Amino acid sequence: MNTTTPSLCQIKSNHASHAWNKKKRNFLSEECEPLRGDMDEVEEKSKDIINFTAEKLSVDEVSQLVISPLCGAISLFVGTTRNNFEGKKVISLEYEAYLPMADNEVRKICSDIRQKWPVKHIAVFHRLGLVPVSEASVIIAVSSAHRAASLEAVTYAIDTLKAKVPIWKKVS
Amino acid sequence: MNTTTPSLCQIKSNHASHAWNKKKRNFLSEECEPLRGDMDEVEEKSKDIINFTAEKLSVDEVSQLVISPLCGAISLFVGTTRNNFEGKKVISLEYEAYLPMADNEVRKICSDIRQKWPVKHIAVFHRLGLVPVSEASVIIAVSSAHRAASLEAVTYAIDTLKAKVPIWKKVS
Repeated sequence: MNTTTPSLCQIKSNHASHAWNKKKRNFLSEECEPLRGDMDEVEEKSKDIINFTAEKLSVDEVSQLVISPLCGAISLFVGTTRNNFEGKKVISLEYEAYLPMADNEVRKICSDIRQKWPVKHIAVFHRLGLVPVSEASVIIAVSSAHRAASLEAVTYAIDTLKAKVPIWKKVS
Repeated sequence: MNTTTPSLCQIKSNHASHAWNKKKRNFLSEECEPLRGDMDEVEEKSKDIINFTAEKLSVDEVSQLVISPLCGAISLFVGTTRNNFEGKKVISLEYEAYLPMADNEVRKICSDIRQKWPVKHIAVFHRLGLVPVSEASVIIAVSSAHRAASLEAVTYAIDTLKAKVPIWKKVS
């Protein structure tokens, strides 16, 4: 797994540092967005937190990364391994990614989201390797002041990730 | 707080029993849906899990309640207390519900969802009493085989809950 981190405008908030320390072996990157005008935005920078990891994903962990006192809404999508695919029994799925390009594509999704909706933080975690039935392969979390923005952004994020990010799955 | 439980078609699955034992003091109710034709549906009944509680809500707990090996998607919405409302600072929100009617209305939302989308499990947890800034007042989780159903159902659920369920909030 690629263990480098992008040099782009990294923020080490408490949450982010925690995730970073915990997952040094993973491909985790963050990027800040330009600040907006009002005081509240100055107090808390927006974060894009992207992580490709071989570890089991936690909904609580990803959800906590996007919490903000400025936000009234967090929307999440969790993609899990189904026990069947095209009529056949599935034990697990195996995910593989072309990491530098996958990271770039997810970063682009975050940037597109910020053009379309007033969201605060975005976290996209993708597990690689074997993912057994009922466990999460991907978790996306978005926070926003009002609910419509994060709900629409999460749908856009998972639809675009499935269509454009170079991640392949193998049924086993 | 109302401590009775509806007598309607209750299921005590492992998850549900756990939640029930843990939250005996809360208003927690479940209702089964009619089974559909195929074998997988017979193996695992669909659940609507509704809970009004004064306890802190956990995204992981609610998320786990809707996990199913038949599903590839879990969509969640978490409503949190913002630190501002109409230009004024907020310390916490206080929620109050007319419980029997609130429970009925949420149950109706679950039933409507099942008419509109092929979803598996639905969990709606609402906290009552004081909810400090950044903590969750409501968590909705829906699982489905494919992602569109649960994503659309969660949006419908929170929009309809806000519009129709007798829950009041007081800013403090």
